[in-house]
Amino acid sequence: MAQPVFEGFLSTSEMACLLDEQAMVQAMMDFEGALARAQARVGLIPPAAAQAISSLCRAELYDVSALVGASARAGSLALPVIDKLTETVALFDSVAAGYVHWGSTGQDVLDSALALQTQRALRLIDADLLRLCEGLLSLAEGAPAMPMLARTLMQPAQVTSLRFKAMGWLAPLLRCARSLRQQAAEAVLLQFGGLVGTQAALGAKADAVGAELARELGLQLPAVPWQSQRDRWVRLGAELGLLCGVLGKYAGDLALLSQAEVGEINEPLAPGRSGLCGYASKDNPVACLLALAAAKRAPVRVAALLACMNQEHERGLGGWQAEQAEFSGLLQCCHSGLQALSLALPLRVNPARMLQNIDRQLDLVCAEGLVLLLAASMGRLPAQACVEQMCLQVRQQGRPLRQLARELLQGDAVLAAAMPLASLEAVFDPHLAARHADGRVAQALLQARVELGDLQASAQT
Amino acid sequence: MAQPVFEGFLSTSEMACLLDEQAMVQAMMDFEGALARAQARVGLIPPAAAQAISSLCRAELYDVSALVGASARAGSLALPVIDKLTETVALFDSVAAGYVHWGSTGQDVLDSALALQTQRALRLIDADLLRLCEGLLSLAEGAPAMPMLARTLMQPAQVTSLRFKAMGWLAPLLRCARSLRQQAAEAVLLQFGGLVGTQAALGAKADAVGAELARELGLQLPAVPWQSQRDRWVRLGAELGLLCGVLGKYAGDLALLSQAEVGEINEPLAPGRSGLCGYASKDNPVACLLALAAAKRAPVRVAALLACMNQEHERGLGGWQAEQAEFSGLLQCCHSGLQALSLALPLRVNPARMLQNIDRQLDLVCAEGLVLLLAASMGRLPAQACVEQMCLQVRQQGRPLRQLARELLQGDAVLAAAMPLASLEAVFDPHLAARHADGRVAQALLQARVELGDLQASAQT
Amino acid sequence: MAQPVFEGFLSTSEMACLLDEQAMVQAMMDFEGALARAQARVGLIPPAAAQAISSLCRAELYDVSALVGASARAGSLALPVIDKLTETVALFDSVAAGYVHWGSTGQDVLDSALALQTQRALRLIDADLLRLCEGLLSLAEGAPAMPMLARTLMQPAQVTSLRFKAMGWLAPLLRCARSLRQQAAEAVLLQFGGLVGTQAALGAKADAVGAELARELGLQLPAVPWQSQRDRWVRLGAELGLLCGVLGKYAGDLALLSQAEVGEINEPLAPGRSGLCGYASKDNPVACLLALAAAKRAPVRVAALLACMNQEHERGLGGWQAEQAEFSGLLQCCHSGLQALSLALPLRVNPARMLQNIDRQLDLVCAEGLVLLLAASMGRLPAQACVEQMCLQVRQQGRPLRQLARELLQGDAVLAAAMPLASLEAVFDPHLAARHADGRVAQALLQARVELGDLQASAQT
Amino acid sequence: MAQPVFEGFLSTSEMACLLDEQAMVQAMMDFEGALARAQARVGLIPPAAAQAISSLCRAELYDVSALVGASARAGSLALPVIDKLTETVALFDSVAAGYVHWGSTGQDVLDSALALQTQRALRLIDADLLRLCEGLLSLAEGAPAMPMLARTLMQPAQVTSLRFKAMGWLAPLLRCARSLRQQAAEAVLLQFGGLVGTQAALGAKADAVGAELARELGLQLPAVPWQSQRDRWVRLGAELGLLCGVLGKYAGDLALLSQAEVGEINEPLAPGRSGLCGYASKDNPVACLLALAAAKRAPVRVAALLACMNQEHERGLGGWQAEQAEFSGLLQCCHSGLQALSLALPLRVNPARMLQNIDRQLDLVCAEGLVLLLAASMGRLPAQACVEQMCLQVRQQGRPLRQLARELLQGDAVLAAAMPLASLEAVFDPHLAARHADGRVAQALLQARVELGDLQASAQT
Repeated sequence: MAQPVFEGFLSTSEMACLLDEQAMVQAMMDFEGALARAQARVGLIPPAAAQAISSLCRAELYDVSALVGASARAGSLALPVIDKLTETVALFDSVAAGYVHWGSTGQDVLDSALALQTQRALRLIDADLLRLCEGLLSLAEGAPAMPMLARTLMQPAQVTSLRFKAMGWLAPLLRCARSLRQQAAEAVLLQFGGLVGTQAALGAKADAVGAELARELGLQLPAVPWQSQRDRWVRLGAELGLLCGVLGKYAGDLALLSQAEVGEINEPLAPGRSGLCGYASKDNPVACLLALAAAKRAPVRVAALLACMNQEHERGLGGWQAEQAEFSGLLQCCHSGLQALSLALPLRVNPARMLQNIDRQLDLVCAEGLVLLLAASMGRLPAQACVEQMCLQVRQQGRPLRQLARELLQGDAVLAAAMPLASLEAVFDPHLAARHADGRVAQALLQARVELGDLQASAQT
Repeated sequence: MAQPVFEGFLSTSEMACLLDEQAMVQAMMDFEGALARAQARVGLIPPAAAQAISSLCRAELYDVSALVGASARAGSLALPVIDKLTETVALFDSVAAGYVHWGSTGQDVLDSALALQTQRALRLIDADLLRLCEGLLSLAEGAPAMPMLARTLMQPAQVTSLRFKAMGWLAPLLRCARSLRQQAAEAVLLQFGGLVGTQAALGAKADAVGAELARELGLQLPAVPWQSQRDRWVRLGAELGLLCGVLGKYAGDLALLSQAEVGEINEPLAPGRSGLCGYASKDNPVACLLALAAAKRAPVRVAALLACMNQEHERGLGGWQAEQAEFSGLLQCCHSGLQALSLALPLRVNPARMLQNIDRQLDLVCAEGLVLLLAASMGRLPAQACVEQMCLQVRQQGRPLRQLARELLQGDAVLAAAMPLASLEAVFDPHLAARHADGRVAQALLQARVELGDLQASAQT
Repeated sequence: MAQPVFEGFLSTSEMACLLDEQAMVQAMMDFEGALARAQARVGLIPPAAAQAISSLCRAELYDVSALVGASARAGSLALPVIDKLTETVALFDSVAAGYVHWGSTGQDVLDSALALQTQRALRLIDADLLRLCEGLLSLAEGAPAMPMLARTLMQPAQVTSLRFKAMGWLAPLLRCARSLRQQAAEAVLLQFGGLVGTQAALGAKADAVGAELARELGLQLPAVPWQSQRDRWVRLGAELGLLCGVLGKYAGDLALLSQAEVGEINEPLAPGRSGLCGYASKDNPVACLLALAAAKRAPVRVAALLACMNQEHERGLGGWQAEQAEFSGLLQCCHSGLQALSLALPLRVNPARMLQNIDRQLDLVCAEGLVLLLAASMGRLPAQACVEQMCLQVRQQGRPLRQLARELLQGDAVLAAAMPLASLEAVFDPHLAARHADGRVAQALLQARVELGDLQASAQT
Repeated sequence: MAQPVFEGFLSTSEMACLLDEQAMVQAMMDFEGALARAQARVGLIPPAAAQAISSLCRAELYDVSALVGASARAGSLALPVIDKLTETVALFDSVAAGYVHWGSTGQDVLDSALALQTQRALRLIDADLLRLCEGLLSLAEGAPAMPMLARTLMQPAQVTSLRFKAMGWLAPLLRCARSLRQQAAEAVLLQFGGLVGTQAALGAKADAVGAELARELGLQLPAVPWQSQRDRWVRLGAELGLLCGVLGKYAGDLALLSQAEVGEINEPLAPGRSGLCGYASKDNPVACLLALAAAKRAPVRVAALLACMNQEHERGLGGWQAEQAEFSGLLQCCHSGLQALSLALPLRVNPARMLQNIDRQLDLVCAEGLVLLLAASMGRLPAQACVEQMCLQVRQQGRPLRQLARELLQGDAVLAAAMPLASLEAVFDPHLAARHADGRVAQALLQARVELGDLQASAQT
């Protein structure tokens, strides 16, 4: 069954491929084949049976859509697959058929299959995340002392620098990259507990089979099955949600900065973005669109994962099944936003507009500096009152604050004597402010390059 | 692209078909064809152009997956479709190609297409909802004065009746059926505003084209386009979420009642539910599973719709696109749970277990009645203290409350004189309690049959 | 116990007063007093008892904080209150004490008390909502044909009018005002079911008591108690969430328009908004802040209400209790955002900046109109290609589109002959565009005045 | 302003105290005092000024409610506090007044104050969490080989042991305890960035002041201010949500096990839980109620935190303010559920009911074991078919599976010869199953004691 068109738009083909019916049934079959081989190796089932089973664990042999179609009625995605596999093995080797899925349960298959695909999915995410980090770090490194407005409550507040801003975007992404790997190491686990977690069917050989199976599938083996204790899995999901949140913050800033009325930073022009209906007249931030859509969807998916944690007794009724679907959705929306942003590089930076926008604020964004300067001579509270008064004048008269300040000095010899004109001009110099802002992240910038290097070096490919 | 396997499990094939790439692109093409015809009728474009366009508005002529695949890069699902349609029309009639999508915009196409499919989806939901209502009303009608435990805070509290319980399940479903139709009448609207809602391109003919288009597509025409004002649409989504909540409440009760240790009501046995891994040993409430999964997922989808309402200016960046995906998901999970429950009828009711479960409570669930009886003779507070004391004895000694109460009367001539033994026995008679409970919903039962009849009579098929 | 400081910031004192311990315990006592009087009137309890109980149902007589403090351990907010009331009545009249809370249950008290306070809360909300509607309608009425940019995907798209925009903000608010009243009429109900909904304790007098009680409290009496069937209540909650969503959309637009770089519309200047740290230099949209905070919080509260609908059997374990808290929170955040916006009127509108912002787009926002004009002469596809080409030139050369278009005509006699210069100039006239936009909502504007008048006339005060 | 009554019910007094107006304003004043002292130490402001400021940083000197009441209009909780503090200092020392809040901003104060209170809040949570862990570990240690039903999809599935179940509840709690401490170490940070994060006002002394301030307040100093980059903070919030989820899973299991019809494990009887309306007849799981309410509320609060991450530019409009309120709410609901469960120990365990419930399943929960046993003789598929057949008979005839199995052996000499009767009986022995289950967690049990010991030893008190 094809996916809803609106989901397709907000996913990536790579991620959709990892999670679709075909791939997931194959992962389930990978589990069944590996289980049979593991059991043969520890002497639990005949090697020939394992071989017969293995050879038929290939999704392309089956009508996967029909299997999924039968699942809702069966109340389990795994039952139709296991039944069909058993039936098919029986066509060739009735003894082997008796060993299919031996001592396991549907949840073992489904959780492990999702773990396998998640492992692959996280590699996609890791790669794109490092690409985005590289892009932002390069941006920061390549833009020394470039003044731009800092804004609070959506209003211009003071002058900062592009490097300072870029480091703000980068730092949480680096934290996410590290944290995602850590949580994955904790959460991407083999599920192998049999009916209720105790592996009752395998008796004394349970540990040996589990170890073999884990080794073959490349999944960690937890001390106790995690059938209805999903904290590690949900923690990983929350981490994906956090990444979406971080991406959303970056995309939100970008979208604001790329408004035509602001025009400081834009996504790169991309072929295929305009067209018959788009016109060259619009410069739509399409990557931001996808990241912002992901940032709208991810939080509630994390909430759903958390709400699903109350899985009754040894296997939940509805909660477990909903959780798996929500987790898949989270992987998709995370990759959709991330990939878009990681491809929307390098950004188009417009330093002239940045300066122009600062300039248009009539120096109101330098008010704090002026207060501090005057405070040395007149005390802070009077200085504050004085500057506040001047700011009102700026708004009424449309003249820049620096002009009013100069006039203040010209009219007040005491003040002028106490305060060299250069120090007044320094207050209004955006380049000085940008240099100060750069200095605040100088150490962090060097550190980020080291950390990103480590992450890049240890990335699985 | 196939949908994620876990979504397939929690959807229905009917609903998935309405929302998949093929159907949705066809609905978009239905819009484009109808638009051309409407414009021809009002003399805005040549009839021949409309005919040429119409004849090519058939999704099966196009590689739908490729169109969806191109959408993310374009930042719009509509752009690739419109471009491709224009290109194709141009192959046959270059003049007609110039009139494709005339004066419209991507959002017009997408919102209207989703409205069309939602109209169909709501018919599926309405039909299954009425089926479920019929089943529950029949259950209530067919079970007069059948005593069963009422439980509060998950503990037995008093005796009620199956009819009373069934009416509790039914009443909100009837309200949902009515409300869904009302909200659909408000929300399933034509979107037709052109670039920014003002239909600037159509000038004085905007109204005429809109009216024709709405008529042809069978959608209501709102007074003002709803491009970024989504309240009606989200209100409909919230109503779907409410239905999921009502279904979840019913499924939750059912799952609790069908626990082997309770065993009062079970889903019907269904072929295909057990199997190699299921055994006949398990009586899994599979329909409840699907409804409970839907009830976990729906609330956060509604939250996402609400969170998406802040769509910037005349068309949102991310919010609109996320909303459409969430809305589709809501339709799917709603139908999944609803269909499952509407098919899980008639329920297997076990009146013997109901009585047995009452009996096992040692009459503690009759304590309030005993207090009221004794209160007439000794005042309520002393009666309460006395019964509380007896309840503790019941717990300690394992003897039923009625026995202790009889002994109380036997040992207290004054009390015995004031209180006929029959009135004491009446306190402990579950059938009397059930009859009282039935009486409380007698009127509602008759009313529900009338209402359901009206709903059934006016159902679109 | 004082509320968390961050909640206090995001609430209003009026709403906080309605929901705090004192007011809610008084509402519970109002229920108890009315219950006793109702039961006396139908002859169930002695009039003297009712009088004794009534006279002590005054929250100021009790240590309300201590009662709430004892509630968590009791697992019920109602138990300590009822126990204390009974104990207190017993000090004066031991017979009357026996009739306190007769035949009722904690949920009856709590749900009814919350219904009472919600009724009052909705009056606050209604009044502020109508005030906001009046403000926006006045804005629309007072701004004929005022051109401003329409923006899609956060980029300028075309010229619209302030009236058109204001009507877009107003229409959903009017719908919310109507819908809130409707849902309140459905949902603000007396809860009166006794232990498990069957009113077992009241026997044949249940209906009479219920009717009296409902009349006295001014609440509707539903056909069947709604103990664990919360659909109507949650529907009302969803409506509050929708209102927050609508407010958030308006506040979001306002915040974008009030950015210093855009500067088209600002909140009124309010005393107390700047100060020692605020400076006159910042023009913070504080009302938007509160409405946007509410719009972040409301969606998840609605999700919580929906998630709480699965209340087990006849009274839920956790779900009911969480629902009541979430509902209260929803009332608070809704009123916080609404009151702020309803006070932030009239808006400061800057028509000069609106025109200036249009002007700075170099006519790119008129591209569609130019295509349509040229299409008449050269066919739409060539016209489109031609305009697209010109748009690129506009971006590269920084010259307005109208200039390029004039040059095109000057260089092409055929085109010039077919197309009077005036029609070209009309394409670029923002006032014409604004007048067209106004025309699209002319009817809606008149209708809105009528509707608002009706709502104002029928408002409860 | 008192908090809404329903919030009071779902909070704890300890946590409410930490977050209420008085405590939070004090924490804000702690920041201001420490800031002045830090600035004096690095020579930025006169020591006398620092002393004057410090001496007035005591919340009890101010009308805290009035300050909070003024906050909404100011658009900031910090502004009224700082203004009032400045004004008050000025009464005594006008020079010192000029140094209040020097070079800082409202967000510095509020974020740091919340960090301080969160640090204290996490200590409360840590202590209760370790108490709960100790209780569950003791339960596990003290209950060797105690058979009880394992249930999947809310139906009996197989026999497990109480120790196995208890370890299932314990393990995620231990993980949460560790993870909460880790995330707290990352997230509980000083906020100190000045207006836009660059500490423009402090120039070269910014680092020195920050270091002194962090030291004095006992908060970590991050490399870069986290004004609008909230990932670490939200990650901590998500961890609180996870804990609520884990608690909800435990409480959900407990509530199911304590149903009167199951009766295997109950909360301890607590004084104050029954009363005039409660009767001794009800054994309400009140701690579960609170934990389940928290588990309903926490997921959406986490979603709100994630949704708030998109905080515009250098300080968000609405998102930051909503986040702080949601975070506070999360602390409250987390502690409410946790404290209740940590006090609801030791659990009342009913081993007899556990065995009885196993017994009532007619050995259907031993079906897998029987299949495996028979498989050795007849192959698995025939064994499975055979047992499935017998299970149907069990359901129809109400006779236990073991009886049918014995009859099978009696009637089949070949089978009987191949299979000693003792091995058949072993299949149905719940004590053997419990011992096997215990064995599966033997290692984990020892490990948990070590880990808990470490956590207890390193707990801050």
